[in-house]
Amino acid sequence: MKRTRAFKLVRESQVEMTEMVLPNDTNRLGNLLGGRLMQWIDIAAAIASFRHTNRVCVTASLDALDFHHPITQSEVVVLRASVNRVFNSSLEIGVRVMKENPLTGDRKHTNTAYLTFVSLDDDGKPVSSYSVKPVSSEEKRRYREAGERREQRLLHRKRSKEGRRAVA
Amino acid sequence: MKRTRAFKLVRESQVEMTEMVLPNDTNRLGNLLGGRLMQWIDIAAAIASFRHTNRVCVTASLDALDFHHPITQSEVVVLRASVNRVFNSSLEIGVRVMKENPLTGDRKHTNTAYLTFVSLDDDGKPVSSYSVKPVSSEEKRRYREAGERREQRLLHRKRSKEGRRAVA
Amino acid sequence: MKRTRAFKLVRESQVEMTEMVLPNDTNRLGNLLGGRLMQWIDIAAAIASFRHTNRVCVTASLDALDFHHPITQSEVVVLRASVNRVFNSSLEIGVRVMKENPLTGDRKHTNTAYLTFVSLDDDGKPVSSYSVKPVSSEEKRRYREAGERREQRLLHRKRSKEGRRAVA
Amino acid sequence: MKRTRAFKLVRESQVEMTEMVLPNDTNRLGNLLGGRLMQWIDIAAAIASFRHTNRVCVTASLDALDFHHPITQSEVVVLRASVNRVFNSSLEIGVRVMKENPLTGDRKHTNTAYLTFVSLDDDGKPVSSYSVKPVSSEEKRRYREAGERREQRLLHRKRSKEGRRAVA
Amino acid sequence: MKRTRAFKLVRESQVEMTEMVLPNDTNRLGNLLGGRLMQWIDIAAAIASFRHTNRVCVTASLDALDFHHPITQSEVVVLRASVNRVFNSSLEIGVRVMKENPLTGDRKHTNTAYLTFVSLDDDGKPVSSYSVKPVSSEEKRRYREAGERREQRLLHRKRSKEGRRAVA
Amino acid sequence: MKRTRAFKLVRESQVEMTEMVLPNDTNRLGNLLGGRLMQWIDIAAAIASFRHTNRVCVTASLDALDFHHPITQSEVVVLRASVNRVFNSSLEIGVRVMKENPLTGDRKHTNTAYLTFVSLDDDGKPVSSYSVKPVSSEEKRRYREAGERREQRLLHRKRSKEGRRAVA
Repeated sequence: MKRTRAFKLVRESQVEMTEMVLPNDTNRLGNLLGGRLMQWIDIAAAIASFRHTNRVCVTASLDALDFHHPITQSEVVVLRASVNRVFNSSLEIGVRVMKENPLTGDRKHTNTAYLTFVSLDDDGKPVSSYSVKPVSSEEKRRYREAGERREQRLLHRKRSKEGRRAVA
Repeated sequence: MKRTRAFKLVRESQVEMTEMVLPNDTNRLGNLLGGRLMQWIDIAAAIASFRHTNRVCVTASLDALDFHHPITQSEVVVLRASVNRVFNSSLEIGVRVMKENPLTGDRKHTNTAYLTFVSLDDDGKPVSSYSVKPVSSEEKRRYREAGERREQRLLHRKRSKEGRRAVA
Repeated sequence: MKRTRAFKLVRESQVEMTEMVLPNDTNRLGNLLGGRLMQWIDIAAAIASFRHTNRVCVTASLDALDFHHPITQSEVVVLRASVNRVFNSSLEIGVRVMKENPLTGDRKHTNTAYLTFVSLDDDGKPVSSYSVKPVSSEEKRRYREAGERREQRLLHRKRSKEGRRAVA
Repeated sequence: MKRTRAFKLVRESQVEMTEMVLPNDTNRLGNLLGGRLMQWIDIAAAIASFRHTNRVCVTASLDALDFHHPITQSEVVVLRASVNRVFNSSLEIGVRVMKENPLTGDRKHTNTAYLTFVSLDDDGKPVSSYSVKPVSSEEKRRYREAGERREQRLLHRKRSKEGRRAVA
Repeated sequence: MKRTRAFKLVRESQVEMTEMVLPNDTNRLGNLLGGRLMQWIDIAAAIASFRHTNRVCVTASLDALDFHHPITQSEVVVLRASVNRVFNSSLEIGVRVMKENPLTGDRKHTNTAYLTFVSLDDDGKPVSSYSVKPVSSEEKRRYREAGERREQRLLHRKRSKEGRRAVA
Repeated sequence: MKRTRAFKLVRESQVEMTEMVLPNDTNRLGNLLGGRLMQWIDIAAAIASFRHTNRVCVTASLDALDFHHPITQSEVVVLRASVNRVFNSSLEIGVRVMKENPLTGDRKHTNTAYLTFVSLDDDGKPVSSYSVKPVSSEEKRRYREAGERREQRLLHRKRSKEGRRAVA
C-alpha cells in the first residue's frame, strides 16, 4: 500500500447509509430509540474514517448531540458521513442525519453529529493519515469549524482535568 | 397527498445503502452469507419503491441472481437501488452491489439484482403509480431492458403454467 | 473422512426448518419481509448442501423467485430443502416454502426456490462431490428438471455475455 | 373453528427445526450458549403447542435440563418437538435436541427437554384442548411417562409450598 | 493469577442485569417469550460464575423452572444472579427475576432459577474453584438449600439411569 | 396514579445493567463498537428516567462523550444510571460505565455519559415530574454539577443559534 499522495478529497470517503426503521428499533411510542440512531451514526462515521485513512479506526469521542425531532416507525433514515478535517492520527467526521417519510416524500434534517476517530497501525498504535483537502465552500467551512471544535474540545478537556484536581 | 405529477425522475428515489459486514453475517470461511446480502438487496429496493410511489410496496419477484465474488468480513458493501421502469401497479427496481476493501480502497461490482415490487393502496390492493422518466443514456438503457426483462418474465410464467398443466 | 461411497440418497441430506415470524421480520403491513424469507431459504439450502457434500459450500446463484402469497405475522413458515442434482463441484438445492396458520391449521405452498451451491475443499477451491441418487418418482422428476434448469442457466449466462459484448 | 374432533395424532403437530450456529450464538470457547439453545427449545415447543391446540399457548414450566455435550460453532442443531400428552388446558411438549457435524455426518443426541404449555382463549384465559392419541409404542411410552412427570411436578410443587410455609 | 485466597464472598460476584422488553422479545399477545427470559437468565448466571471463578464456565444444568407471571412489553426485567455454593469444579447460581412496570412502579418476583455451571481450565477441562463464604442469614440459607438441591439432582440422575436400564 | 409525593430519592430509580460483549458487538480488532456502547448507555438512562417519572421519556440530548479505554471481547460491561437532577419536564441522567475482565477481576471506569430525557404525558406532550432529592455527598455534588452542565448546554445552544444567524 504505497502512500505517495499527501491528501484525499472529502468526496472520496463520503458515506451514505439508508436505514428502514424496524419494530425492534423503536420504543413504546413507536419512535426510533436514541441509542439505535447513535449506533448507526457511529457505523457511518467509522466507514468514512476507514475509507479516508485505509486503516482500522476507533471511536475516540462524540460531541454533544441533540435529538430534537422524533423519528417514527413509518420513516426512513438517511445518514451522510464526511471527513471534515484530519489532525495527525485523529480525524473529525461529521454525520448529517435526515429523516424521510416515504409516503409523503417529506424530508427533515434531524441531527448533526461530530465524532473523532483515531487511525491505528497494525500494532494498534495511533498513526498519522492523509490530510483532507476541502474543495467546495461548504467543505471549507466544515474544515474551518472542525478546527474550532477541536480547540473547544482540548480546552474543555483541560478544564475537566483541573476540575478533577480541584475536587481531589 | 396530491398526485398532480404524471412521472418522477430516477434520481428522486435512488437509494444508497452502505453496510459493514459484522461477524454474524458470515459463514465459517468468514464470507458474507448469500442470504444476508439478499436481505440487504430487498431492503434497498423496498425503500426505492416506497420513495417513488409514496406507497407501501411489497416484493413480488426477484430475477435470477449470481454470486460470483465472495465478500469477506474485512469488506464494506455498497448497494445502489434505482427504479428502472413502472408497469401500472408493479415496478422494476435494479440493485447494483459493490464490495469495497476500505484498507486498500479496492472496489468491485459483485452483483446486480432485479426485483419487482407492487404498490398497494390503503386496503392492500394493487394501485397504479407515477411512471418514471429516464433522462441519462444509462437510465434509458435500463428502462428499455426492464421492458425486455418483463416480457421474459411473462413468457416464463406462461411456460411454467403450461408445464404444470402438462404434468397434471 | 473416507469417501468409499459414490452417491448419497436425497433424504440423507434433506433439511426441515420451521420459523416463527417475529415482529422484526415484518413490514408495516405486518407481512414477512421478502428479504427475510430469502435469508431463511439460503440457510436451509446451505445446510442441505453441507450435509450432502460433507464440505463447506457457498451460494453461487439463486433462480428467479416469485412471492405470490404474503405471509403474515400470525403465521409459521416451514422450509424443506433437498439436493436435486449434483454437477461436479456444484449442486442444485430446491427449497419448498410452506406457510401455516397455527390457529386454523391452514397450510399453503408459497414459493419454491432453486439455488446452486459450490462445494469447496480446505483451500477454498471448488471440489467435486458425491452424486445424488433419486429414488422416488418425485425425486426423479426433480433430478431431470434440475438438468433442464442447468441448461437454461448456462444458455442464459452465454446470452448475457454476448449482450454485454454487443453493448461494449 | 369447529371442534368436532376429540383428539389429534402426535405427528399432526410435530415440529422439526434446524439451526446453523452463528458466531453470536457462541461463548468465547466457540461453544453454543446454553441460553440460546433454551430459546430454540422454547420456540420449537411453542409451535408444536400452537399446532396441536389451534390456540395461542404460553410457556408454563420447563423441567430440569442437562447440558452434557457442548455444541460447537461448526455444528448444526436439529430440534424435534412433539406433544406428549394433554391435561385439560395444559400440555406437555418433549423437545429432542440433536447436534450434527455436517463435515463428518456425525450426529449425537445432546438433550431432551420437557416443557408445559397452557392454551389460552381469546380473552387470555386457560381453555381445554384436543387430547392427543398416541399410536406407536414410542408415543405410548411418552404418553405414560408424561403422566408420571406430571405427578412428580404436582408433588414437587406441593412440597415447595409446604417448605415455604415452614420457613414463614 | 495467584490464588492465595481460599474463598470469596457472595457479593463479590453478584450480578444485576436490567432488560427492557423489546418488540422482538414478545409473542403475539405482547408477552415476553419464555425462551428469551431463559437466555437472559443464562447470561446473568454465566457472568456471576465467571466473576467468582475467574475462569470460563459453561452451563451444565438448569433446574425445573416455572413461569407463573406473564411479563408484558410495557415492563422492565431485573435479574439478580448469586453464587449459592461451590462443589469442586461445579457451582450453583441462583437467579432471581423481578418484573417491574415503570409507569406504576409495581414490582413483582416472577421466577427463581437455579443453574449449575462448571469452571474450565485453559484446556477446557473441569477445574476446582474458590469456595464461597455465606455471610448473611439469607446467604447461609441459600448455601444450605443448594446442598439439598444438589443431593436431589444426584438422586434424580441416578434414578434416570436406572430407569433407562430397566427400559433397555 | 396518585402523585402525592413531591420528590423521589436517587436510589429509587437507579439502574444497574450488565452486558456480556458478544462477537457481533465488536470491530475487527475484537473491540466493542462505540455505537453499541452508546446504545446500552441510552437504554440504561431510559429505564432510570421511566422509573423516576413513571412516564414514557425520550432522549433529548447526549453530552460530549469520550472513549479513552477500548473494551475487548473478553470483557463484561457494567453500566450504572442515576437521575442527577430534574428540570421541569427534562431530567439529567448520568451513566457510569465500567469494564471488567472476569478472568482477572480487573475493573476500570471507562466513560461517564450525561443524557437529558424529557418525560411525556399520554398525548406525547412534555410534562413536569417529581424532583429528585440528593442525600449522599456524591448525590449532592452530582445535583450541583447537573445544574452547571445545564447552564453550559443552554449557553452553548444560544451561541449555536447566533452562529447560524451570523452565517445566514
